[in-house]
Amino acid sequence: MLETISWTGHSVRLVDQTKLPLETAYVEIADERQMWDAIKRLVVRGAPAIGVAAAFGAHLGVRHDDSDSLADFDAHLEQVCTYLASSRPTAVNLFWALDRIKRVSQETRKQGSRSEDLMVQKIKQRLLAEALTMLEEDRAVCKKIGEHGLSLLSGLRRPEPVEGSTHNSGLSVLTHCNAGALATVAYGTALAPIYLAHEQQIPIHVFADETRPLLQGSRITAYELREAGVPVTVICDNMAATVMSQGKVQAVIVGTDRVAANGDVANKIGTLNVAILARHYNLPFYVAAPTSSIDLSLGTGAQIPIEERDSGEISNGLGRQTAPDHVQFYNPAFDVTPADLVTAIITENGVAKAPYEQSLKALCR
Amino acid sequence: MLETISWTGHSVRLVDQTKLPLETAYVEIADERQMWDAIKRLVVRGAPAIGVAAAFGAHLGVRHDDSDSLADFDAHLEQVCTYLASSRPTAVNLFWALDRIKRVSQETRKQGSRSEDLMVQKIKQRLLAEALTMLEEDRAVCKKIGEHGLSLLSGLRRPEPVEGSTHNSGLSVLTHCNAGALATVAYGTALAPIYLAHEQQIPIHVFADETRPLLQGSRITAYELREAGVPVTVICDNMAATVMSQGKVQAVIVGTDRVAANGDVANKIGTLNVAILARHYNLPFYVAAPTSSIDLSLGTGAQIPIEERDSGEISNGLGRQTAPDHVQFYNPAFDVTPADLVTAIITENGVAKAPYEQSLKALCR
Repeated sequence: MLETISWTGHSVRLVDQTKLPLETAYVEIADERQMWDAIKRLVVRGAPAIGVAAAFGAHLGVRHDDSDSLADFDAHLEQVCTYLASSRPTAVNLFWALDRIKRVSQETRKQGSRSEDLMVQKIKQRLLAEALTMLEEDRAVCKKIGEHGLSLLSGLRRPEPVEGSTHNSGLSVLTHCNAGALATVAYGTALAPIYLAHEQQIPIHVFADETRPLLQGSRITAYELREAGVPVTVICDNMAATVMSQGKVQAVIVGTDRVAANGDVANKIGTLNVAILARHYNLPFYVAAPTSSIDLSLGTGAQIPIEERDSGEISNGLGRQTAPDHVQFYNPAFDVTPADLVTAIITENGVAKAPYEQSLKALCR
Repeated sequence: MLETISWTGHSVRLVDQTKLPLETAYVEIADERQMWDAIKRLVVRGAPAIGVAAAFGAHLGVRHDDSDSLADFDAHLEQVCTYLASSRPTAVNLFWALDRIKRVSQETRKQGSRSEDLMVQKIKQRLLAEALTMLEEDRAVCKKIGEHGLSLLSGLRRPEPVEGSTHNSGLSVLTHCNAGALATVAYGTALAPIYLAHEQQIPIHVFADETRPLLQGSRITAYELREAGVPVTVICDNMAATVMSQGKVQAVIVGTDRVAANGDVANKIGTLNVAILARHYNLPFYVAAPTSSIDLSLGTGAQIPIEERDSGEISNGLGRQTAPDHVQFYNPAFDVTPADLVTAIITENGVAKAPYEQSLKALCR
C-alpha cells in the first residue's frame, strides 16, 4: 500500500496527490509553510489525512523554537496552529488535530521541569510523539471502521446474477470522491470495508464517481483500488442515477469532512446528489466517519463552513479551458447532506443510526 | 445569432461544435460521408439539428445520382438513408427526418413525368427543397416552443430578493446539456423560453450543468447564452442539488432526444439525476420537445436504444488523461427519465401533462 503520510526522521513525506494517477510522486515537507501549501493545494487531502498532516505541521513549525520562556513558546505554537487552521475551513479533523497538539503542550507542563527552556524542549519532543501517535491511531481507527462497515455490507442482499453482465458477480457499492487509503494513513474510511472484504476474498466491486471538478474519484479512488486489485468502474457523476436504476449497486458509502451533532454530513460536493438518488432508489446511504470527524459542538450542518474554491477548477481544471470567458461560475467544494437521508454513520466505535443526537453522542464518549 | 446549419447553395455549413467555446469554426459538408462523420463526432448535435442535418445529408448523397431508372434511384436513396441512420441511435429526429425525405421521394413520383430519368431529376430537386423547408420549420417550431414554455415559466413564483445575492434578481432556471440554438436551427428547445424572456426584457438567469463527459453545458450552453447576453452560471453536474437546496432555481428545463408514447424521456446522461433532484426539492421539471422528437411507436422509454460511447470520453475527454490505465468505465450517452418525474412536455403545438398517453397523442395529430 502507498504511504499517504510518513515521517522520515526529519521531514514529512507526502504522496503528491495532484500528480495522480499518472505519476506517483512524493514531496518532502520541512516546515509549516510548506505544509499549509500542501493542504491548500490538495497535495494531501481527505479529512483524516489533513488532521495528521496538520499535527506534523505544528511540530515542524515549532521544532526550531529555542524560547527561554513558556509564554513565548505558547505564543509561537498558537500562531503556528492558527496559521495551519487557515488552510481549509470545512474538515473538522484539521481543528481537532491542532487542538489535540495544543492540549498535549498544556498537559506536558504539568509534569514540571527544572527550567522553562528545558520544558520547551520537552514539549517539542512530546508534540512529535503525539503526531506519530496520531499517525498510528488513524490506521487502527480506519481498520475498525472497515470491520463495522463490512458487517453492514455483509447484511445486504446480493444481486441476482445477470447473464452476460460483468457487474453482478458480487456486491457492488458506489462511492463519491476519495475516502480511501489516500485520504487517511491507511485503509481509508469509506473504502476500508471494501479493502477488508477484498482481503477476505469476498467478491466486491466499486463504482467510482469521477467527482468533478478535481476528479478525486477517477484520479485517486480508481488508482488506489486498482493498485489493491479491487475491480472498479469509473463513471461521471451524472451517471449515478442510471447505475442505480439498472440495479448495478446495492449501497452507497462515502466519507465525510464533518458531521454535526444531529447527523447532518458535510462531504465533497456531489454527496448530497448521491444521497437523494439513493433515497429515490431505496438504497442504503452509509457515511464512514472517524469520531474525530464528528463535531458535537455544531447543532446542525447549517453551521458547517463550506469552502468555495476558485472557478478555474471548473473552467480550466482538466488541462484546457472548457468554458467561455465572461460567464459566472459557482464552485462550492462541499455540500451538506441532511441526516434524514443518512442510513447509518460508521465510526471506529460502532455504527450510529437515527436519532443521531443520541447515537453519535454515545459513540463519541 | 450563430447559424448552426445553413445551406451555401452547394454544401452545408455547420458550426464545428467540437471546437467551442474557444474557437468559432465552420465546416463545409459536401457529401453524405462527411455528414455521417459530423453527426457521429458531434460536430453537429442536438436532436432537432441532427434531423435537419440528416435531411441535407440525404440530398448530398443522391444529388449526383444520374440513374435512368426509378428503381436504381430508390435503392441508392435507401442505401444513403440507412447509412446516415447508423450515425447515432438515440435521437428519433434522425429517423424522422430520413423517413420524411423518403416519403417526399415517393410522393413526388405520383405527379408523373415524361421519363424515369426526368423523374429522378425532379425528385432530387424536391429533396433539397424539403431539407430547406425543414430548416425553416425548425426555426418556427422552436419559437412556438419558446412561447408555450415562457407561459409556463411566467406562472412560477419569483424568488424573494435576497440581500447580497446575485442570483435572485429574477427567475432562474437550471438546464442540463445543450438544448439551445446550437442544438437546433435557431432558438433551441429548452432555451427558447429563455431567449424569448430575454427579448421581452424579463429578467432571467440560467444555471448550466457543465454536462460531463463532453461538457456541452459549459462549452455550448454557456457560450450561446453569453453571446445572447443572458446571464449564466456554470456549475459541475454534482452541484445541482446544492443549487436547488439553496433556493437558487425555480425550475428545471431540458431538451430531449426521444419521448416515448407514455411520456418517458430520453435525454443526455445526467437528466435523470436532475429530474430526481427536482422532485426531491419540489421544483417543476419541464421537457421541451418538438413533436418530431416524440416517438408514439414506442410504448415506453425502455424501448429507446441508448448509445454507449467510447470510454476515452471519460478518461481522456478534457485535454489530458484523468483516470488510471486498466480500470473499467461505463459511458452511456443518454438516460431515460420516467414520465412520473416529468411535470410537463412543451411542444410547438402546446403543453402536454400527465396522463401522457392521451396528451401526447393529441398534440402529435
